[in-house]
Amino acid sequence: MHTRRPTIGVFDSGFGGLTVLKALLEVIPEADYLYFGDTARLPYGSKSVETVARYAVEAAHYLENHGSAFLVIACNTATALAFDRIISAAHVPVIGVVDPGAEAAAAVSKNQKVVVIGTEATIGSHAYHKALAARGIDAREKACPLLVPLVEEGWVEHSVTEQIARIYLDEAFAGEFRDADTLVLGCTHYPLLKPLLRRASPALVSIVDSAESTAHAVASHLQNLLPANSSVAEERRSLARLRFFATDSVEKFKRLGALFLKQPIDDVQHVDLKE
Amino acid sequence: MHTRRPTIGVFDSGFGGLTVLKALLEVIPEADYLYFGDTARLPYGSKSVETVARYAVEAAHYLENHGSAFLVIACNTATALAFDRIISAAHVPVIGVVDPGAEAAAAVSKNQKVVVIGTEATIGSHAYHKALAARGIDAREKACPLLVPLVEEGWVEHSVTEQIARIYLDEAFAGEFRDADTLVLGCTHYPLLKPLLRRASPALVSIVDSAESTAHAVASHLQNLLPANSSVAEERRSLARLRFFATDSVEKFKRLGALFLKQPIDDVQHVDLKE
Repeated sequence: MHTRRPTIGVFDSGFGGLTVLKALLEVIPEADYLYFGDTARLPYGSKSVETVARYAVEAAHYLENHGSAFLVIACNTATALAFDRIISAAHVPVIGVVDPGAEAAAAVSKNQKVVVIGTEATIGSHAYHKALAARGIDAREKACPLLVPLVEEGWVEHSVTEQIARIYLDEAFAGEFRDADTLVLGCTHYPLLKPLLRRASPALVSIVDSAESTAHAVASHLQNLLPANSSVAEERRSLARLRFFATDSVEKFKRLGALFLKQPIDDVQHVDLKE
Repeated sequence: MHTRRPTIGVFDSGFGGLTVLKALLEVIPEADYLYFGDTARLPYGSKSVETVARYAVEAAHYLENHGSAFLVIACNTATALAFDRIISAAHVPVIGVVDPGAEAAAAVSKNQKVVVIGTEATIGSHAYHKALAARGIDAREKACPLLVPLVEEGWVEHSVTEQIARIYLDEAFAGEFRDADTLVLGCTHYPLLKPLLRRASPALVSIVDSAESTAHAVASHLQNLLPANSSVAEERRSLARLRFFATDSVEKFKRLGALFLKQPIDDVQHVDLKE
């Protein structure tokens, strides 16, 4: 049995991917993690395919060069716009957030009608629409560009945020998608808004958090690499090593990142990608 | 008299600086303009001093290399964080938006109490506080990070935007600044919100638009270079040449830029700064 402790590289434009790292730590505590936040160039959500692809490939190579044996693209925009480019450029297995989210939505939806919310770029790419259509699911996609700045302002339970969420969701759950039964959070910032988004969605809608779905997909991929004995896993949990790389201020990364990861962030190194 | 037609380089992280270009076209129609929008790396408002300074110096050099005889830093964040660095790196005269805005506020305020609103980075730099203190003015600075995304969502007359503006302005016009008589728009996106901000501000508050103040400051600097005969200026107006450079999608620059400039944008060239 191969019990070598894996190093998983997790990449995002900024802080949102920390919700994916948080889910990964819960599902796969017996691994080491390198997290790359391209905070100098965030947000990706309003940028073009070419720009996002170039940035994402640089980040993937950085994580590989620092020992990652597996890459998680914990950014819906990068996955939606540049997944094929990243896979071609990488030398290790790569998993993104779109397919796991689509897979979970397909498993949960009873009437095959799903609403997906995300950034302008993710929605404009129609990556979720394609991934869901391949699973026989009809998707309505809705860009919600104000939700990321609202989360970053810390207004995760603010009445204004709820009004804005209702405006977006009322437009999405309308017409032939009035009775859609599943909502996919197609942006890694949105898990922080889950209670508010549940209130703003029609009753009985299931919420699929692509951060959680991705963590479970990574666990499935890695299960042959990990120790089967759960007491070994438990013992190693306390030893989990986390290292962070950020392209902008280390101080800001520690401060804002802790809100997303819900634990203190210590080991952050500044990276200059020589732009 | 030196009547050579000047080429003015205008720089911003994205679209906001187009409100400054619009004001420049009104005040100095008899010039050529190069506009550089660093849209691949926007927004600067949430980035660190080092990152913003590096980006701004690259943009300044790009505009110089393309023939600008004068540079306007049409971005409050870049001016607030990196003005000295840009001046040191540039080989032509440079004007930023902070000093003209502070100058106008000092001229307008009767009780020497001024509120300044801007991005997180502009406010965190205290550049306006220092510039106003040097003119004997007390300033309260208030970061309003949601206003830029609201403008970019096109919600310039939306009730949600007005609620958010009231939350920010109520916090700013409080305590010893309850009776402040002047509001400085310390972000080049904010002129698009001027009617709404006027409604959300206390009655009788004067609004200083740093885009307009900057255009007048540039005109003063350039007056010796420009033809004194206004009929010549008028005649040359129709010949005003505008060229645009954007680091992200040209298509998006044309579409969103037209909203800020309030005229169609045609001649846009994509620039890859080899990040």
